[in-house]
Amino acid sequence: MFDRILYGGDYNPNQWEKAVWSEDMRIFKEANINSATINVFSWAKIQPSENEYYFDELDEVIEMLSKENYDIVLATSTAAMPGWMYKKYPEVAHVDYDGRTHKFGGRHNNCPSSEIFRKYSSRLAGKLAERYGSNPHVTCWHINNEYGNYCYCEKCEAAFRVWVKDKYQTIEAVNKAWNMEFWGHTLYDFDEIVVPNALSEGIGYDKTAFAGISIDYCRFMSDSRLETFKLEKAAIREHDKDTAITTNLMGTYKGLDYFKWAKELDIVSWDNYPAYDTPWSQVAMTHDLMRGVKDQQPFMLMEQTPSQQNWQAYNSLKKPGQMRAQSYQTIAHGADTIQFFQLRRSVGACEKFHGAVIEHVGTENTRVFRETAELGEELTRLSEIIGAKAPSEVGMIFDWDNYWALEYTSGPSVDLKYVDQIHKYYRYFYDQNISVDMLAVDADFSNYKVIVAPVLYMVKEGMKEALQAFVENGGTLITGFMSGIVDQSDNVHLGGYPGPLREMCGIWAEEIDALAPEQSNTVVLADGTTGTSHLLCDIIHLEGAESLAEYTSNFYAGSPAVTKNNFGKGQVYYFGTELEPALLDKILADATAAVKPVLAEPTKLEVAVREKDGHRYFFIMNFTDEELPLPAEFVGKTDILKGHVLEEHDLAKYTTYLVKM
Amino acid sequence: MFDRILYGGDYNPNQWEKAVWSEDMRIFKEANINSATINVFSWAKIQPSENEYYFDELDEVIEMLSKENYDIVLATSTAAMPGWMYKKYPEVAHVDYDGRTHKFGGRHNNCPSSEIFRKYSSRLAGKLAERYGSNPHVTCWHINNEYGNYCYCEKCEAAFRVWVKDKYQTIEAVNKAWNMEFWGHTLYDFDEIVVPNALSEGIGYDKTAFAGISIDYCRFMSDSRLETFKLEKAAIREHDKDTAITTNLMGTYKGLDYFKWAKELDIVSWDNYPAYDTPWSQVAMTHDLMRGVKDQQPFMLMEQTPSQQNWQAYNSLKKPGQMRAQSYQTIAHGADTIQFFQLRRSVGACEKFHGAVIEHVGTENTRVFRETAELGEELTRLSEIIGAKAPSEVGMIFDWDNYWALEYTSGPSVDLKYVDQIHKYYRYFYDQNISVDMLAVDADFSNYKVIVAPVLYMVKEGMKEALQAFVENGGTLITGFMSGIVDQSDNVHLGGYPGPLREMCGIWAEEIDALAPEQSNTVVLADGTTGTSHLLCDIIHLEGAESLAEYTSNFYAGSPAVTKNNFGKGQVYYFGTELEPALLDKILADATAAVKPVLAEPTKLEVAVREKDGHRYFFIMNFTDEELPLPAEFVGKTDILKGHVLEEHDLAKYTTYLVKM
Amino acid sequence: MFDRILYGGDYNPNQWEKAVWSEDMRIFKEANINSATINVFSWAKIQPSENEYYFDELDEVIEMLSKENYDIVLATSTAAMPGWMYKKYPEVAHVDYDGRTHKFGGRHNNCPSSEIFRKYSSRLAGKLAERYGSNPHVTCWHINNEYGNYCYCEKCEAAFRVWVKDKYQTIEAVNKAWNMEFWGHTLYDFDEIVVPNALSEGIGYDKTAFAGISIDYCRFMSDSRLETFKLEKAAIREHDKDTAITTNLMGTYKGLDYFKWAKELDIVSWDNYPAYDTPWSQVAMTHDLMRGVKDQQPFMLMEQTPSQQNWQAYNSLKKPGQMRAQSYQTIAHGADTIQFFQLRRSVGACEKFHGAVIEHVGTENTRVFRETAELGEELTRLSEIIGAKAPSEVGMIFDWDNYWALEYTSGPSVDLKYVDQIHKYYRYFYDQNISVDMLAVDADFSNYKVIVAPVLYMVKEGMKEALQAFVENGGTLITGFMSGIVDQSDNVHLGGYPGPLREMCGIWAEEIDALAPEQSNTVVLADGTTGTSHLLCDIIHLEGAESLAEYTSNFYAGSPAVTKNNFGKGQVYYFGTELEPALLDKILADATAAVKPVLAEPTKLEVAVREKDGHRYFFIMNFTDEELPLPAEFVGKTDILKGHVLEEHDLAKYTTYLVKM
Repeated sequence: MFDRILYGGDYNPNQWEKAVWSEDMRIFKEANINSATINVFSWAKIQPSENEYYFDELDEVIEMLSKENYDIVLATSTAAMPGWMYKKYPEVAHVDYDGRTHKFGGRHNNCPSSEIFRKYSSRLAGKLAERYGSNPHVTCWHINNEYGNYCYCEKCEAAFRVWVKDKYQTIEAVNKAWNMEFWGHTLYDFDEIVVPNALSEGIGYDKTAFAGISIDYCRFMSDSRLETFKLEKAAIREHDKDTAITTNLMGTYKGLDYFKWAKELDIVSWDNYPAYDTPWSQVAMTHDLMRGVKDQQPFMLMEQTPSQQNWQAYNSLKKPGQMRAQSYQTIAHGADTIQFFQLRRSVGACEKFHGAVIEHVGTENTRVFRETAELGEELTRLSEIIGAKAPSEVGMIFDWDNYWALEYTSGPSVDLKYVDQIHKYYRYFYDQNISVDMLAVDADFSNYKVIVAPVLYMVKEGMKEALQAFVENGGTLITGFMSGIVDQSDNVHLGGYPGPLREMCGIWAEEIDALAPEQSNTVVLADGTTGTSHLLCDIIHLEGAESLAEYTSNFYAGSPAVTKNNFGKGQVYYFGTELEPALLDKILADATAAVKPVLAEPTKLEVAVREKDGHRYFFIMNFTDEELPLPAEFVGKTDILKGHVLEEHDLAKYTTYLVKM
Repeated sequence: MFDRILYGGDYNPNQWEKAVWSEDMRIFKEANINSATINVFSWAKIQPSENEYYFDELDEVIEMLSKENYDIVLATSTAAMPGWMYKKYPEVAHVDYDGRTHKFGGRHNNCPSSEIFRKYSSRLAGKLAERYGSNPHVTCWHINNEYGNYCYCEKCEAAFRVWVKDKYQTIEAVNKAWNMEFWGHTLYDFDEIVVPNALSEGIGYDKTAFAGISIDYCRFMSDSRLETFKLEKAAIREHDKDTAITTNLMGTYKGLDYFKWAKELDIVSWDNYPAYDTPWSQVAMTHDLMRGVKDQQPFMLMEQTPSQQNWQAYNSLKKPGQMRAQSYQTIAHGADTIQFFQLRRSVGACEKFHGAVIEHVGTENTRVFRETAELGEELTRLSEIIGAKAPSEVGMIFDWDNYWALEYTSGPSVDLKYVDQIHKYYRYFYDQNISVDMLAVDADFSNYKVIVAPVLYMVKEGMKEALQAFVENGGTLITGFMSGIVDQSDNVHLGGYPGPLREMCGIWAEEIDALAPEQSNTVVLADGTTGTSHLLCDIIHLEGAESLAEYTSNFYAGSPAVTKNNFGKGQVYYFGTELEPALLDKILADATAAVKPVLAEPTKLEVAVREKDGHRYFFIMNFTDEELPLPAEFVGKTDILKGHVLEEHDLAKYTTYLVKM
Repeated sequence: MFDRILYGGDYNPNQWEKAVWSEDMRIFKEANINSATINVFSWAKIQPSENEYYFDELDEVIEMLSKENYDIVLATSTAAMPGWMYKKYPEVAHVDYDGRTHKFGGRHNNCPSSEIFRKYSSRLAGKLAERYGSNPHVTCWHINNEYGNYCYCEKCEAAFRVWVKDKYQTIEAVNKAWNMEFWGHTLYDFDEIVVPNALSEGIGYDKTAFAGISIDYCRFMSDSRLETFKLEKAAIREHDKDTAITTNLMGTYKGLDYFKWAKELDIVSWDNYPAYDTPWSQVAMTHDLMRGVKDQQPFMLMEQTPSQQNWQAYNSLKKPGQMRAQSYQTIAHGADTIQFFQLRRSVGACEKFHGAVIEHVGTENTRVFRETAELGEELTRLSEIIGAKAPSEVGMIFDWDNYWALEYTSGPSVDLKYVDQIHKYYRYFYDQNISVDMLAVDADFSNYKVIVAPVLYMVKEGMKEALQAFVENGGTLITGFMSGIVDQSDNVHLGGYPGPLREMCGIWAEEIDALAPEQSNTVVLADGTTGTSHLLCDIIHLEGAESLAEYTSNFYAGSPAVTKNNFGKGQVYYFGTELEPALLDKILADATAAVKPVLAEPTKLEVAVREKDGHRYFFIMNFTDEELPLPAEFVGKTDILKGHVLEEHDLAKYTTYLVKM
């Protein structure tokens, strides 16, 4: 996609005097910065009134950057509307979950159904493309910014009715899909449908009386925001047929179905903002997800902070070497760019305590800048890695429909969180340095030896067949509690859990017990290892499967807690409860014995691989607090980041090497 | 009331294909199910539009059940309005405490003052009665469902003004009752009254600037919802003079004055949903309350889950035997029916994880069904118990006015919760297997040896005289802190706490100290036993009473903590502080020495009695985690549930026997 | 200001029958009560309708009190509007942060921009002044009550636009001040400005996307409420040129800039309501602040409870002697009056559990009354202390702009609270019995040896020069992290932290690390003492300063944590992190060595001094749980409260002496 690793980030010269601009150019050059993301929030500046556009300043910025041979990531600026638009057209404002109509302020503040918003946002995108699309330095279009936020206004209500009618055709089909006979919600007309929020079906902020309508509203909102993206994209394409178009995603953000979005993006980009206590395995998993939403294609790291964030509760500094290590972790998992928010720290407003390449002191004489420059220098030598793949034998299913549906369930436990559940499995593979691809439910599973599908709560049409075929052909499927429960409308697959998975699992889960946080059950593995389990406990009957672990407490002591079923040439593992990690790992090691980790010998280092043109690039990183020995494979090899030959020694925290083999 | 113990529960064949219906009939028969509660949520189905009614499906259901000789509990279906009604008459929607007008969605979603709602709900009830009232299988009418929810709309505001005027006649009387001179709220016209919510007198969600108006609003809302009940009842009675009419109550639900409601019900019914950690004594107490609201008459258990709930945070399964034990506990405390929510688990929407007699697997081959069938079989032999009384020598006062008023107080402690306070005393009697009647403030006390009246905060007119007469005639009254404080309008009984109770208590409580959760005082009993006290500490002066316990810490060390006063032929005990259970029990044992527990010897088993025709039915249940010996009285007796003669042995958890003596 | 120490408090005879009034007079006389604050909440009574006024009752009250020679504090009654006003003019109601329009109810419930409110509140004040201003017993006017509460209605929005235009003149200046280029909020017209609440710039309830507009809204709201005060004041002054005018402030209440307000008050008064666990040093600090907001002038204690409060979570009783000790602490820190809320406990509504001089029992035979009477008797002998000063060599800066700005910051830590940070330093001086003056940012620093300015986050114009001049002339400035960061508009002082303070501090703080609550760093002082630090850690470079403490952990181990810089004839201390108290105290002891504590030898007693006419009045109080020896200086001196000569002995908790030397 790009000729070099883009290195730069959000740049807002418009917030600064001209004198600062040339100083920026000088300093950025010292850091080998070669890219700038501009015009992210300038709509009001560019369009001072309804029929007036002002491009002079942007012209100057682009001219300056072009002269300096930057790869410009040009944003369309539509993530925050001008004040005059609210004043003239109050309808552009969104209505929140509580039913409150918003006013001018903040960002991501539009109603996606607003015709006014749609008209002026796509018109702006078109004008930008017309003016700058032919500039070869404009390397990527960045539409809007961090899409999100749901709207519950009357325009959306009307649009939702149309969406529902398109999907279901008849009101009878809607009643059936949403099980409206329950609580007597039977509809006779599409006009009776109201948006599901705090004033209608919502139960608190997280639950709903009718998951069917609420999940469909998530789908509609995701589609509706995507529609506004597509309108801008189409407007750009009228003038610029080729330049890559993206928008920055937000990892496991719940609101939008990124698999669906990624189809409309030429390249995925995303913003990586872990908290000070986010597990590194979760960061890795999220990178893999961002690679996975678009078929394992390399992605852009559109934003990360060079030093600290501002909007977390506690915004710790990145330690020396941490930003570098995190950047290489990002590349290891599929990124072809490293971009910061932002290049110069803003002087005011709510992000002024967010780190930047040039801090408030305004000079290059800072630790942060030095680390940025060090990384920049290294990246100039890594263009060869662009486009390299991260090959995996393990696929893990991630699905926004399941995300929404699982977390809407009323019962059995409020502690059931989708991303947590996925991460509990991913963590095992991370610890083993086994590469994982995050997959859509409709992915091609045939390339994988193992498919992991925790809490596959919603099994949509075709899924059963696809998974069965995968297993029959010799694959290993790993799933467990709260799987196979409902169909696309959140109606239960009757006939016994896990529904469509029952046959291939070879079990029937008769009941699902919920444990409160202070409670646990005890479990014993076949080899006699004992431990505890939490959260949920399926009470399982074997229907062909063998038991790998049994409960040893509670009234279902003696019944299976984990099972394995031979199905065709493959196997299906079913985890009926949330095992403590020591037990989980034992069984997963057995289940995934056929999968090759990156290194032969175990290590607590993260070692990840990308492959290209017959070469393997090993990213070796220490994210632990311990000093860890360099694995034997790499002794005597050259770290291509620094050009040194690696000898036998211990790696301190955040030490990072890249070895080409 | 009924000829047999109704055994069944909520049944919604309308949510299922016809093929399922006959399967239901077959399976239910195996469980000796003889009753179904139908039509609970079908308004939209039955009345598809304003002037159209559709009874065909319901006809079929009733015909089928009648053919199978079911006792049909026929609901009026008015707890959730059709979508078309919202669309045509948005006024039917309620306005919440935050002042937000709701839309179609959820349930219990009507404004009780809406003339449209009143008209169509009573018309529907009438039509159902006209059509089905003469069917002898329709054994009970079930109006609406789980009434609750307050409305704060303008129609309710107008209706409240009328209610207030009816009650107080003049605006001057209102000002005095609500103490409106405070903060200058003096009213000159009934039209100046506004509903007390978050936009007016509310302080947060639980407190109020003027308890007088807020308590009256509770009374009004309770009355107003009751009025809608009465309208439906009247419509039924136009066509059906005899069939029992009920609605299902919710135990200690705060919103409605169930003593007032029970007067309008032919039989009380209620829904028993303890959480996984609710004390069994509290479940027992709530049963007693549901028996008490209608003069100790037997009640219906309208709903319980056969296995698990869905709307708690953690929805643990009922353990084997637990549902059976809970069912007999229910009967022991006065129930003549055992009904489940629900008979077949719903396929979708928010209650699909709520247990049912037929689970999602759809067959009878489940633990849950087997336990249901076991119980059903036993109940067929227990018709003789119908109508039996649960005789008590102890009465405990429970009063919704006090509930509202006590929890509205701003000060002395936020931890003062009405039901908790009642339960702290009830727990003692439960542990001693002493039967308790829950009484209204205007009950006839003369049948009791002991009246327990904790936190009798509001002493309304006539109460002082009634309690004095009771004690003078030899009764024992047990009361304590936060009693005798205010009148019906929440205005203080001036002249020293506990106001109207001061004379009979023989004390004056000069001050009320509040202890934070991390604080406690020490107390010593007359016999030298020491312990701690919490929450509140009255500083008491004896005025004829004797001291049974003294504080030994804080600046009021040496002053009485608990007192006893001889008054007429009786005594009054006053607990000035919340004693730890060991101390509380000692004094209560002394105070209630004249009361006979069910068994001569103490046991940790729950043993409860119902009496009829000279027979005593002993329900013997183990709700503890220990194995407990069978009390000597029952050795050699026959457990009429299983027909076995009981020998000396230990009872495991949930073991239950019923012995007739 | 007054001839005697006013002793009395809020008195509402209007809430009582006439018979009670004369009983009040009799009882109050026994307590030497000589003052009553009346008419605080009587607007509805006095003005029953738009054009009707009724003064008969108030006439009687004033006549009675005048006859008894009371000092009457006459309130204008405008803190709660009559119901009829809402009914006739709904526009008088305020709109809350959520955008909800309120109705009649509560208090502090008006929109400050409402012309109706302004007209009728000032008209009422004028009528009262006209009628009672010449009464010599009316000693003080008390306008409104506990001003507070923000309004976000359209009238306020319009008024805010005018306020903004007055301040900034051009829309360009507004854009620059609020940094509106960020997130593309560029304004083209003042009419595009919307109030910053939950529907616009608000982030949750505490944060904002644009601190510039939100801080300005705080200023505007403070000004706007002050404007309504000034209108009432002007109306009074038309009829009464001389009588002192006040309103009761609320200590560190965040909403209003009390330094600005105090300029309009003839005397400051305030309401002291510590919680059961508020540190005594914080109570002392708040008194000092209330003295400080009006140039260290004596103030009125307008409200305290004689016994307990009602609106805290846990309303513990004041222990015997506690009210007396707190009263003297109040006087020690500058009060010339002791007034209670309230004189007779109200019979109903939300404050009926708030203590009063006459409790619900209605007699003088209570502990509370006896303690009140004891104090009253003592105060009759203390008139000589009126107007005495509390001289201080240490000044501490407190600034509402900083309060607002610091707590609006998004980052680095949510635990950064303004009053906490100020108190952490104040506590040291309190423990050392070093008197502190709380100062405005524009105070005259030349009278002080030491100026303490923690979290001086916003350094407004002129501040740098004032502080530099103070230090150059030999003063000691103590400041630290999060200082010198922004200008008046919350835009960063670029060029390196601590911005304008950098030169005088002799340091550059390159980065600010945030520690989560479970994290800490270790620090070593120059003398080898070690300990921990929390919250934030500046990474400091010395630019002329010397290091007094170094981090010994984290990646900045070895870099300075606390510094001292000689600047001119003075020094500047900079605390780069929140030290544990033991370390903080060591450095502060060194930094303030030139300051004389009240006593030569340390004591855990609080000993505070007021001075007048060459005499020093030593207030000696024990607020600890230990018995503490009488300091040697006072042995043989007379306690003028009781007239006893003090011998060597230990003081129990709450023991209080007053020694004149």
